[in-house]
Amino acid sequence: MNENMNNMNMNLTQERPFDILNKSIGKQVLIRLKNSVNIRGKITSFDAHMNLVIVNAEELDSSGEVKTKLGLILLRGGNIIFVSPVEAPDHT
Amino acid sequence: MNENMNNMNMNLTQERPFDILNKSIGKQVLIRLKNSVNIRGKITSFDAHMNLVIVNAEELDSSGEVKTKLGLILLRGGNIIFVSPVEAPDHT
Amino acid sequence: MNENMNNMNMNLTQERPFDILNKSIGKQVLIRLKNSVNIRGKITSFDAHMNLVIVNAEELDSSGEVKTKLGLILLRGGNIIFVSPVEAPDHT
Amino acid sequence: MNENMNNMNMNLTQERPFDILNKSIGKQVLIRLKNSVNIRGKITSFDAHMNLVIVNAEELDSSGEVKTKLGLILLRGGNIIFVSPVEAPDHT
Amino acid sequence: MNENMNNMNMNLTQERPFDILNKSIGKQVLIRLKNSVNIRGKITSFDAHMNLVIVNAEELDSSGEVKTKLGLILLRGGNIIFVSPVEAPDHT
Amino acid sequence: MNENMNNMNMNLTQERPFDILNKSIGKQVLIRLKNSVNIRGKITSFDAHMNLVIVNAEELDSSGEVKTKLGLILLRGGNIIFVSPVEAPDHT
Amino acid sequence: MNENMNNMNMNLTQERPFDILNKSIGKQVLIRLKNSVNIRGKITSFDAHMNLVIVNAEELDSSGEVKTKLGLILLRGGNIIFVSPVEAPDHT
Repeated sequence: MNENMNNMNMNLTQERPFDILNKSIGKQVLIRLKNSVNIRGKITSFDAHMNLVIVNAEELDSSGEVKTKLGLILLRGGNIIFVSPVEAPDHT
Repeated sequence: MNENMNNMNMNLTQERPFDILNKSIGKQVLIRLKNSVNIRGKITSFDAHMNLVIVNAEELDSSGEVKTKLGLILLRGGNIIFVSPVEAPDHT
Repeated sequence: MNENMNNMNMNLTQERPFDILNKSIGKQVLIRLKNSVNIRGKITSFDAHMNLVIVNAEELDSSGEVKTKLGLILLRGGNIIFVSPVEAPDHT
Repeated sequence: MNENMNNMNMNLTQERPFDILNKSIGKQVLIRLKNSVNIRGKITSFDAHMNLVIVNAEELDSSGEVKTKLGLILLRGGNIIFVSPVEAPDHT
Repeated sequence: MNENMNNMNMNLTQERPFDILNKSIGKQVLIRLKNSVNIRGKITSFDAHMNLVIVNAEELDSSGEVKTKLGLILLRGGNIIFVSPVEAPDHT
Repeated sequence: MNENMNNMNMNLTQERPFDILNKSIGKQVLIRLKNSVNIRGKITSFDAHMNLVIVNAEELDSSGEVKTKLGLILLRGGNIIFVSPVEAPDHT
Repeated sequence: MNENMNNMNMNLTQERPFDILNKSIGKQVLIRLKNSVNIRGKITSFDAHMNLVIVNAEELDSSGEVKTKLGLILLRGGNIIFVSPVEAPDHT
């Protein structure tokens, strides 16, 4: 999709979406997956496919209660709808 | 899909779809996802995969009422059906 | 899929599918999405992924009545089944 | 998938699947889509992604009766199960 | 996925899956599609995406009876679960 | 995904997943497909997309009984959940 | 998605998600698949697509009891939601 980006007066100092992941390393995030499962835990690494390593991961039920303690997980990026930092990184 | 684009007398000054995202930075957008979820919030960054960072994101129910306050989210582009600027950018 | 195209005596002056989009710029189109939603509005830009910008977009119900006024939308190409010019471009 | 093709004693004069589309230009085809919708109309152009332009397109119901007249459509190849020439091209 | 193949002592004279298609040209095959539809007919061409041209194609119901005569079809490879030669090619 | 692999002290003599397929050539395997169908038969070839040729393939019902004798099939890799050698190859 | 990674002050000594797989070789893991199936067993190899070889694999029911003993399986990465080391690798 480079064409899309090349045609723009893109400010190179502008933040990009993955910066949020970089700033969230070591912090709590909430992740919603395609099957409506919510996962909460601390993100320790990620890659360009949005594959994430989450420590102390917990699967939450629809009311936000802990359903299953998953511990350390490697989560495939393709199943993710969104990632939300619980402790917001420095971002305006 | 370059072939598709090369065969056309494409006006290089013509706007491209992602220009809308560029013009919407810092503004409110409404996003419809594949699972019929609607998200509203302020877009602060995007990339060529339509991954978006939304601040003060809110999940809306079918009647447009706020269902869940999500705060800051990194939304994967692959789940998006459309993005609609709430305050329309300068576009005719 | 270049192999498919190379093996053919392809007439280079032949129209290609995306020419329809190019000719429809500034005109009304009807778009059917994978989830059976129909969108109607004026197309103002597109890219090689069939991402479209539609202004004055309206979501139609199954009987063709306006269900929701969406205004300006950036529609992801991957969700589209077909695009149909309401005012037919010059095409035989 | 080039590996698959390279390992074969492929007869270069052998027909390839897309030749059927090339021979069908200007002729009636029946198209079955993934959602079981059938479309009938005259194909006027195609590309390597099997995106098709169909003129006088009609959506058929399960008994083959015309359900909706669609007119000119640009159909995304990704939704197609098969394309069948109604007037068979010269192919044995 | 080249990495997968490079690491192996791959016997270059070993048959590859697409050889079955090459040997089946001009012969009857049974094709199962993702939506559980079965198609039977004579394969006349294929490409690296497993797109197939089938002549005298017939759609079969679950008991193997002919449900619809489709004639000549260009079948998109992406919908195929398996292809089975009805008259087995010379393969051990 | 090369980035993922480059960052690791990868032991080049380490086995890779596709080695299992290579060692299973000529042996019985059980294959589970996405639609919960189980296929059993002897694998005679594979490629980097996990497309498989299976001879004497049998479709099994949920209790493991033979439901349909399929004979020789070319199975598309994209539908596979897992492949399990029935006679285990030499692997620890 | 290289663009995403290039824009960041990425610490090259930082762990990446696939390091978890590398550290888990020879250890027990729990794998959740897209169809909600859980698989438990010892991982012996993986590749960049997250294809995994699991020995002594067991399919678990929703209460975590062994439903089926699968033995040695080659699991396609595309079906995986997450991989969780049962004996946690050295990771903080």
